[in-house]
Amino acid sequence: MSVRKRQGVWYRTRKKRNTVNRGEAQTNQGWIMKSKTEYLTFQIKKRMEFRNITPDVERVVLESAVQEGLCLVNAMHITASVFINDDEPGLHRDYKLWLESLAPFDPSPERYHHNRTGEDNADAHHKRQIMGREVVVAITGGRLDFGPWEQIFYGEFDGRRSKRVLVKIIGE
Amino acid sequence: MSVRKRQGVWYRTRKKRNTVNRGEAQTNQGWIMKSKTEYLTFQIKKRMEFRNITPDVERVVLESAVQEGLCLVNAMHITASVFINDDEPGLHRDYKLWLESLAPFDPSPERYHHNRTGEDNADAHHKRQIMGREVVVAITGGRLDFGPWEQIFYGEFDGRRSKRVLVKIIGE
Amino acid sequence: MSVRKRQGVWYRTRKKRNTVNRGEAQTNQGWIMKSKTEYLTFQIKKRMEFRNITPDVERVVLESAVQEGLCLVNAMHITASVFINDDEPGLHRDYKLWLESLAPFDPSPERYHHNRTGEDNADAHHKRQIMGREVVVAITGGRLDFGPWEQIFYGEFDGRRSKRVLVKIIGE
Repeated sequence: MSVRKRQGVWYRTRKKRNTVNRGEAQTNQGWIMKSKTEYLTFQIKKRMEFRNITPDVERVVLESAVQEGLCLVNAMHITASVFINDDEPGLHRDYKLWLESLAPFDPSPERYHHNRTGEDNADAHHKRQIMGREVVVAITGGRLDFGPWEQIFYGEFDGRRSKRVLVKIIGE
Repeated sequence: MSVRKRQGVWYRTRKKRNTVNRGEAQTNQGWIMKSKTEYLTFQIKKRMEFRNITPDVERVVLESAVQEGLCLVNAMHITASVFINDDEPGLHRDYKLWLESLAPFDPSPERYHHNRTGEDNADAHHKRQIMGREVVVAITGGRLDFGPWEQIFYGEFDGRRSKRVLVKIIGE
Repeated sequence: MSVRKRQGVWYRTRKKRNTVNRGEAQTNQGWIMKSKTEYLTFQIKKRMEFRNITPDVERVVLESAVQEGLCLVNAMHITASVFINDDEPGLHRDYKLWLESLAPFDPSPERYHHNRTGEDNADAHHKRQIMGREVVVAITGGRLDFGPWEQIFYGEFDGRRSKRVLVKIIGE
């Protein structure tokens, strides 16, 4: 096999998508990996609040130029969450009451020993475990591959200070 | 350095796995990224039910021909989960009772304000947050890299209508 | 276009990072995928205990030589968790009491039908769903891209036997 032939093979795999459509399935082969990292900063005025960050994440995906890949979005603080659910105010009110019933705010050092450290946010560390730290979203055809109602939220449980969310994209 | 030499270097990294075994660790270098996307559709007859989708995901992994990578499996609807646990009917009965106690079905607009929208599925949005939206599974040697009892489940909390699960694979 | 030119283009994309810094955002293009797999083994003496495994995961990231990518860390057993939170003993005491209140240990076959199989660990299967199976962490500049307090924990809910955690890294 000549260098030319090897090179040609390589060049074709790089420039042409080898795409097979089989029903709803799609396979891509032979692309070079790209990555993109961005940090979003939030200063939420309330102790507990949810903010729709889907437009921010969509912008990062577009800027990455990744066509097929994975997008990780995670809270970088341990009293906050990133989760995917509905952008409906009634549901958000329900979530807040529910989380408060599962892990009530209590600054005393009696219920939560974590608050013996001088913190008052032990409840926030619990709420974050229910709602989760991160989501991983597929990128297909250069876009977040979402169902009809999926929206990404930053969930703050100990607000009134600056916090960051990481968006990391890898793909081709 | 000649083109030939460069090409040779490239060709070798592409064709031969540079695999180092160190105890249980393994490193691979120099492969081109591949991806695969598939959508699984479910119509669960009950309101709440769990279905083992491991064989479906295994099939997609095999078809992807990815040897080393990551496999994302996520519910595309926000009243459903994808989770990994045991395929044991007693445990599934326990999970259903437990989720019902943590977030009871209640179609009235009193307990859940989400149900003021005309929906009756606020409880399902809560149950899904406990069980999670997605799993990310390692692919090693062309297979799902699972412990002895790990099985992937689709968890439906508001069934009797068509819903989709996304399988996204990236790797080499 | 000559083979030489194509080859030169390829060689440059492989050897030089095409890095654009825009505020806190960074984009990398044109690298070849690498992967690394390692299994960590734990034998926890207590039934429920949390162990900080951040140094183990950091070592695997360094050994992978991946500069930009994703690191999956997951429990390979279904009565254990991997989660990210604070390395603070008071909080860990709080988590244990909280998980015990949400899903109490009860070896009888009455509360949990899973224990009709001869197991006594149904509670552990529940606790693991609250705390999660896995975390996915960004790798940026060759390191875990963490906020100030993020630490990775192995959460054991049915200890006194050998269990494994998978670390899978893919990136460039």
